[in-house]
Amino acid sequence: MKLYTYFRSSAAFRVRIALNLKGLPYEPVFVHLAKGEHRQPDYAAVNPQALVPTLELDDGTRLNQSLAIIEYLETLRPQPALLPPDALERARVRALALLVACEIHPLNNLRVLQHLKRGLGQSEEQIKAWYQHWVADGLAKFEAELGKGRPRGRFCHGYVPSLADCCLVPQIFNARRYDCDLARYPETMAAFEACMQLPAFDRAQPAKQPDAE
Amino acid sequence: MKLYTYFRSSAAFRVRIALNLKGLPYEPVFVHLAKGEHRQPDYAAVNPQALVPTLELDDGTRLNQSLAIIEYLETLRPQPALLPPDALERARVRALALLVACEIHPLNNLRVLQHLKRGLGQSEEQIKAWYQHWVADGLAKFEAELGKGRPRGRFCHGYVPSLADCCLVPQIFNARRYDCDLARYPETMAAFEACMQLPAFDRAQPAKQPDAE
Repeated sequence: MKLYTYFRSSAAFRVRIALNLKGLPYEPVFVHLAKGEHRQPDYAAVNPQALVPTLELDDGTRLNQSLAIIEYLETLRPQPALLPPDALERARVRALALLVACEIHPLNNLRVLQHLKRGLGQSEEQIKAWYQHWVADGLAKFEAELGKGRPRGRFCHGYVPSLADCCLVPQIFNARRYDCDLARYPETMAAFEACMQLPAFDRAQPAKQPDAE
Repeated sequence: MKLYTYFRSSAAFRVRIALNLKGLPYEPVFVHLAKGEHRQPDYAAVNPQALVPTLELDDGTRLNQSLAIIEYLETLRPQPALLPPDALERARVRALALLVACEIHPLNNLRVLQHLKRGLGQSEEQIKAWYQHWVADGLAKFEAELGKGRPRGRFCHGYVPSLADCCLVPQIFNARRYDCDLARYPETMAAFEACMQLPAFDRAQPAKQPDAE
């Protein structure tokens, strides 16, 4: 398998974690988002959405959208499971993952920040305030959700890492980059710290990618 | 089952469609987002994320995040299926759904538009331009994806409506509200029109909800 990835892409980071957790080897293909390589014709042929990541299977089939990719990996390599067997627990894990993927990350990704700068003429300071606003809004929701009915265990849902952790960890890395105050989310940060003790998460982090700057 | 809903909420609209398609009856509980009812203590007890929809099961269990809810309904009532049996096809349907749920809708929901107005001092005209910008960006991606390897059939993926259609249709309703030019997305609009011929989609639309204004 090939993974089209960029070291700082949160969505690619999620998939890197999942691949590592499942012990699936992959060949990284680097797409430099900050240089706009995702908008070049070469990559448009790979992914017409011009988004990273894309997972390319050995037969050439290409999948996109990080959560759809991880759900596919769950079918391809069921163990270790990233979703619990019980349907209600699965709903909780997916809801936590979607809380990051639909409520926080989309507001703060590169093309939105670029649009705030170029389209709306926002200053660096204003963009940072925007970033911090949505992280605070989203992580407060995440913390409330973890506090409510969190099963025992160190991770977002129990004793093993799940799809929710695959989404949370990259979001925390981004939040730190933008100097967000994370002390307000102790349950959330406890899950984050538990994840970072695992090599699968550690090896997937931006600074440890070959394309890191 | 109870569904905490608001007639104009895209995410609640998705779940209303899925419940209708699966023939699952539900009792609607109305949460007036524009009046801020989702931020009142009553609703905080229901959903600490202060987001709509919430699905409450007969035993009181509450689920949130529309896509997690629909995946749960798929397990609860497998037929008619909203996800194809083949894992790669499932990945495609989920990716289309996520393209709406992660790339378009989060940028244009009510709290973001309110923040643009109150936090950033954007005018109504500027907010409309923001809305249209992200709809155009996202639907161009959706159209490219539908054009590429779309299987035969009238819907987003084949001859039956899927999770992708549950997400697309509310997005098109929103796009029309903000006068977006939809003529540029013929494949997408063909799928939309096919959906709207089905009572399950038609009955779920904002104007036909009891709380519609």
